[in-house]
Amino acid sequence: MPNNYRSYLAENRNRNLEELKALLKIESISALSAHKKDIHTAAEWIQNALQTAGLENVRIMPTDGNPIVYADWLHAECAPTALIYGHYDVQPVDPLNLWQTPPFEPDIRDEKIYARGSTDDKGQIFMHIKAIQALLETEGKLPVNVKFCIEGEEEIGSPNLESFVEKNSDLLSADVLVISDTPMLEKGKPAICYGLRGLCAMQIDVKGAKGDLHSGIYGGGVQNPLHALSAILASLHDEEGRVAVEGFYDKVVPLTEEERQAFRDLHYSEEHVKKELGITELYGEKGYTFLERTWGRPTLEINGMYGGFEGEGIKTVLPAEAHAKLSCRLVGNQEPVEIQQLIEEHVKRHTPPGVEVTFTRMDKGRPFTTPYDHPVIQAAMRAYQSAYEVTPALTRMGGSIPIVEAFGRILRLPVVLMGFGLPGENFHAPNEHFHLENYDKGLLTICEYWKELAKTEIS
Amino acid sequence: MPNNYRSYLAENRNRNLEELKALLKIESISALSAHKKDIHTAAEWIQNALQTAGLENVRIMPTDGNPIVYADWLHAECAPTALIYGHYDVQPVDPLNLWQTPPFEPDIRDEKIYARGSTDDKGQIFMHIKAIQALLETEGKLPVNVKFCIEGEEEIGSPNLESFVEKNSDLLSADVLVISDTPMLEKGKPAICYGLRGLCAMQIDVKGAKGDLHSGIYGGGVQNPLHALSAILASLHDEEGRVAVEGFYDKVVPLTEEERQAFRDLHYSEEHVKKELGITELYGEKGYTFLERTWGRPTLEINGMYGGFEGEGIKTVLPAEAHAKLSCRLVGNQEPVEIQQLIEEHVKRHTPPGVEVTFTRMDKGRPFTTPYDHPVIQAAMRAYQSAYEVTPALTRMGGSIPIVEAFGRILRLPVVLMGFGLPGENFHAPNEHFHLENYDKGLLTICEYWKELAKTEIS
Repeated sequence: MPNNYRSYLAENRNRNLEELKALLKIESISALSAHKKDIHTAAEWIQNALQTAGLENVRIMPTDGNPIVYADWLHAECAPTALIYGHYDVQPVDPLNLWQTPPFEPDIRDEKIYARGSTDDKGQIFMHIKAIQALLETEGKLPVNVKFCIEGEEEIGSPNLESFVEKNSDLLSADVLVISDTPMLEKGKPAICYGLRGLCAMQIDVKGAKGDLHSGIYGGGVQNPLHALSAILASLHDEEGRVAVEGFYDKVVPLTEEERQAFRDLHYSEEHVKKELGITELYGEKGYTFLERTWGRPTLEINGMYGGFEGEGIKTVLPAEAHAKLSCRLVGNQEPVEIQQLIEEHVKRHTPPGVEVTFTRMDKGRPFTTPYDHPVIQAAMRAYQSAYEVTPALTRMGGSIPIVEAFGRILRLPVVLMGFGLPGENFHAPNEHFHLENYDKGLLTICEYWKELAKTEIS
Repeated sequence: MPNNYRSYLAENRNRNLEELKALLKIESISALSAHKKDIHTAAEWIQNALQTAGLENVRIMPTDGNPIVYADWLHAECAPTALIYGHYDVQPVDPLNLWQTPPFEPDIRDEKIYARGSTDDKGQIFMHIKAIQALLETEGKLPVNVKFCIEGEEEIGSPNLESFVEKNSDLLSADVLVISDTPMLEKGKPAICYGLRGLCAMQIDVKGAKGDLHSGIYGGGVQNPLHALSAILASLHDEEGRVAVEGFYDKVVPLTEEERQAFRDLHYSEEHVKKELGITELYGEKGYTFLERTWGRPTLEINGMYGGFEGEGIKTVLPAEAHAKLSCRLVGNQEPVEIQQLIEEHVKRHTPPGVEVTFTRMDKGRPFTTPYDHPVIQAAMRAYQSAYEVTPALTRMGGSIPIVEAFGRILRLPVVLMGFGLPGENFHAPNEHFHLENYDKGLLTICEYWKELAKTEIS
């Protein structure tokens, strides 16, 4: 037995990476019902890994949707209890032709592991499991009590997790919630995130004639659903990049001057973002920097739109239908359901004559912030300092983990968001990958965090 | 041998319909390169049918694209020569799930034949071949000389036909061009069309970042190509249904009061159109009726748009690309290339910051009109009167057969558009069909036309 977790992790690195590859091979896409079986395969894989790691009470718990994997280790008397949340489901993979290697055939090249889920979030829940295993195998015990709650519906908005947490609030009760699903600031600059944007999503369906029409025979004489949808979507923003939905900003909490100064002090390079994305200019709400726009301001994005002919060449069709999918990121006190309502009212007001519009409301989650001077966050800062040998940045984030706000509200606990992915690692896009440097340092950070947390007084 | 073509056609009806089904089974979609082989199969099928009918000099002539089938019968001394044009290629069939029976498995039900191409245009070129066969088999000769020119690229804008006609102007020379690819006014109301709209088509591609982005991380901070495309497309029309592209209407020839009155005299039912299409209101350029909008006014229609996620549920992606396909119908002296240029300039002026836009110009064809008092049209009116026992309407049409204008210009001949399809027969849409009533009466009309044309003095 190696005499400490650092040498244990080094010695078992190859074996662990092979195990991670096995997890990444499972096509657990929650958005597509065809992958239901893969979802269960992934849950069972996680269950086995938790058992192997030495966790106890390991079980797959059903919900109305995909199951949740629970486990705990509760033998650290008088020490705090940490609840670790993550998700084993992944995003869809299209457009498939843009992947350099297939999304479910993990490939390590240039010290990065490429696969759907490598960073979001399979790679990071795997690290949490392996950190526990390293401590138990080298020290025989943990410095704190831990509970795992790993779900399978995060990428579709966690529709069943909130009620699960409500029903199982005793089982899940803890002193701190730890989540690794947020990115670092950039390479070599780890970050602890104290705020997340909320989310609400919806689909807009525009219906014209009862069937597709010939654009020669009918063109100019009936409303074209694609024209109507374009007009609707164009009406959602003004020319200064602001969301034009009436009332959209009413419950936004403005960024404070102190926060804006803290963001500026990060010396975040907008030039670097442009280079990384291959674009010549950034764009967004007038009067705000890129970090302010993406961390602290709400947004409305069209995620997909489609209608009519998409094949090669032209088809002179006037289609019967047009569709758009959109989602908002929310901040402050914006309520997802209220925002969906405002958008529906706006769209109805901006629908041209001759078509019918219907709505399907989808994912939602409230925005979240936590005070960054909380002792559980300060303990995390020391853990990062030890593993990375730099002081981590305190950041907010543009993404949403809708359940964070719900966990905090229902279980009344502070949340520490300590993620190890990098912004350019193609979350939700082709060629998702995870830098092994952060996989290795992240494992050390997590182990150190349990030691630092054990020394912390949580009020 | 039956003693006249009417009884011949009646006696051979079933055999002919079985032959038509065989032609309709060939998946000769010109827009999709995967169907190249089917295109050649269709050309060979037409060649064989022309030979069987008794035509001479039958041959498949190559072009830079799909081949053209030529045939003639030139033994009617001192009689006029008619050139018959049609096309053996068909439109794509998506969305496939909306077809009640598969598009390439012809099905006769309720006295209609359902299949892609049944009315546009395989069914109608088949009638021309069978009309010749009926006359030759019952009378041993034709009252006029005929030439066939059947192409395979009409549905993609006939890119090679114009140069083919130029190179073969002697071979194709004639006194009148006859085409059956335009619709009747409505059931029981046949029509001879004296004007067609022109066409130009293009694709607009909007490019943002070099890959798809996570809408949480980047949403609000970079331009979303779907937002940019929506804004661009919405800018193409004003709120009164007019095309907002600067200069678009400059070369439109206004409808005369005489023409508008003639349209009104057709007592065309807008209520009927609404009912047929399942819509509650018509929509288009303010100040014009449905017939005026679709027959005599230009239009710009988006035929397809797509970008981002189209699957089940939501994917919080900020896509790298967005695409639109659009086409215009043109009238008067609008030049397709000039209109494409005007649209490109307009789009460039209306492209929001943060994205790049590129264009692909596609199909084009000039608008066309012919004087409706021409003797070849008057002969057609008598033929219809004989077969349908009603006076046919003189109409214009919203669709485009781009080569009509080119034929007229290059070969200097008048054009007679005598089509037998009905407006509700789903040209270019799922469940395309052709009423057998018009198949039968159309065959008689064509036979009568050759007899009437033989009596006509063409200046």
